[in-house]
Amino acid sequence: MNSVHFTAETSSNGVLERDFTAGEIPGVLWSPASGADRAPLVLVGHGGGTHKKWPAMTGRAHRLVADGGFHVATIDAPGHGGRPRTAHDEQEIAVMQRAMKAGEPVGPIVVRYNAHLAERAVPEWQATLDALQELPEIGAEGPVGYFGLNMGTAIGVPFVASEPRITAAVFGLHWPEALAEWARQITIPIEFTLQWDDEHIPRESGLALFDAFASTEKTLHANSGRHKELPRFEADSAVRFFVRHLDRSVVAPA
Amino acid sequence: MNSVHFTAETSSNGVLERDFTAGEIPGVLWSPASGADRAPLVLVGHGGGTHKKWPAMTGRAHRLVADGGFHVATIDAPGHGGRPRTAHDEQEIAVMQRAMKAGEPVGPIVVRYNAHLAERAVPEWQATLDALQELPEIGAEGPVGYFGLNMGTAIGVPFVASEPRITAAVFGLHWPEALAEWARQITIPIEFTLQWDDEHIPRESGLALFDAFASTEKTLHANSGRHKELPRFEADSAVRFFVRHLDRSVVAPA
Repeated sequence: MNSVHFTAETSSNGVLERDFTAGEIPGVLWSPASGADRAPLVLVGHGGGTHKKWPAMTGRAHRLVADGGFHVATIDAPGHGGRPRTAHDEQEIAVMQRAMKAGEPVGPIVVRYNAHLAERAVPEWQATLDALQELPEIGAEGPVGYFGLNMGTAIGVPFVASEPRITAAVFGLHWPEALAEWARQITIPIEFTLQWDDEHIPRESGLALFDAFASTEKTLHANSGRHKELPRFEADSAVRFFVRHLDRSVVAPA
Repeated sequence: MNSVHFTAETSSNGVLERDFTAGEIPGVLWSPASGADRAPLVLVGHGGGTHKKWPAMTGRAHRLVADGGFHVATIDAPGHGGRPRTAHDEQEIAVMQRAMKAGEPVGPIVVRYNAHLAERAVPEWQATLDALQELPEIGAEGPVGYFGLNMGTAIGVPFVASEPRITAAVFGLHWPEALAEWARQITIPIEFTLQWDDEHIPRESGLALFDAFASTEKTLHANSGRHKELPRFEADSAVRFFVRHLDRSVVAPA
């Protein structure tokens, strides 16, 4: 099994940020700067074309640490951040960029390519979670959350469906075609976001993916606006969702 | 014009509660117990078959005062609380109760009767708002919110559509048949809630009413569960919505 190796450490606004590798996978772990108390872990998956330290990632991580007291971890997805792209990655990205430039629908390409990436990423998330739970400040007993939108949902839905350690998840902004089958296997509490005027994802598609989750506790947040106009207060809502669902008492030191 | 006459006063947990009448209309005004500073006003409309001091009303009022620092007012709807029922009220209620007992759809009856009540209630809300804005601690300059679900939406949507003093509103749990036309005239920020598994309101009907609002800023919250299973955290979400949208600086004393 791969272990977490810390490679850099900074601290700001009460948040400790540590770069790590687990095997070949580069990641970041954010934690409360004061105290090494055990706390629940939230895994955060980034969107397509971005990476583990994209501003939306560090922003969410700081909110989750400051307002929830959680540990927060993310990793670069295959072909993203500092990680090498395969010939297949290059080809799919070129197809996607041509479609965007021509104003053609990108949905079918994103669905297909993200499903391919998810096959590579799910075992990486599982190995990373194994390694993180070896750390004394995290441990293997606590509840674990997952938070990922866009490609973070395309990877997160199959990951969460096959990972019983995840006990609450925030998803959104994706199509049902490759994901609804996985969603039907998910029964943990879910918060799901979509954009009511999304120019890429048809409204009915977003609603169909939300509907597919088998969870008895699930909440849909639909906001007016286009694909990239998700309101910032949804990040705060996600923090509150994890505060409601990740039970700190389970991980409190004996 | 009718003025507010206070008839009783109590205080608990930092919240001052004053019963009032404005003309024939009985109401309640909740305010921060400490300080007579001006603050935005939130009007709260109760649901069918309940009244101005129903637990859900006092619960929301206390949250709005404690977490938002707002003044909060509600009134008994026509035929509700201590107010007399007309022969028409008695007849419609009997029809509704027979349908419920027989397990028949109540939607068409609720839509029709609530639309009738709205015609009587909208001028009452307008007169009550006139009277409340005469109070020195409220004043006529500040922004005003409206918060009402179920019948509180059936009355609130036509009220807000015809009342430019309302600048933000929370609605939900109703049918589009009598309301969509009014909703298309509403452009202020809206938070709208529906129950994903509502046994009375078809999912498509709730989504259609949300869609009808002309607001550029609107948010849908859809939760799993039946009609009466709205999660309690939606009340906290409504408070945060009003904190975001009711600008205190407008009403700050000079």
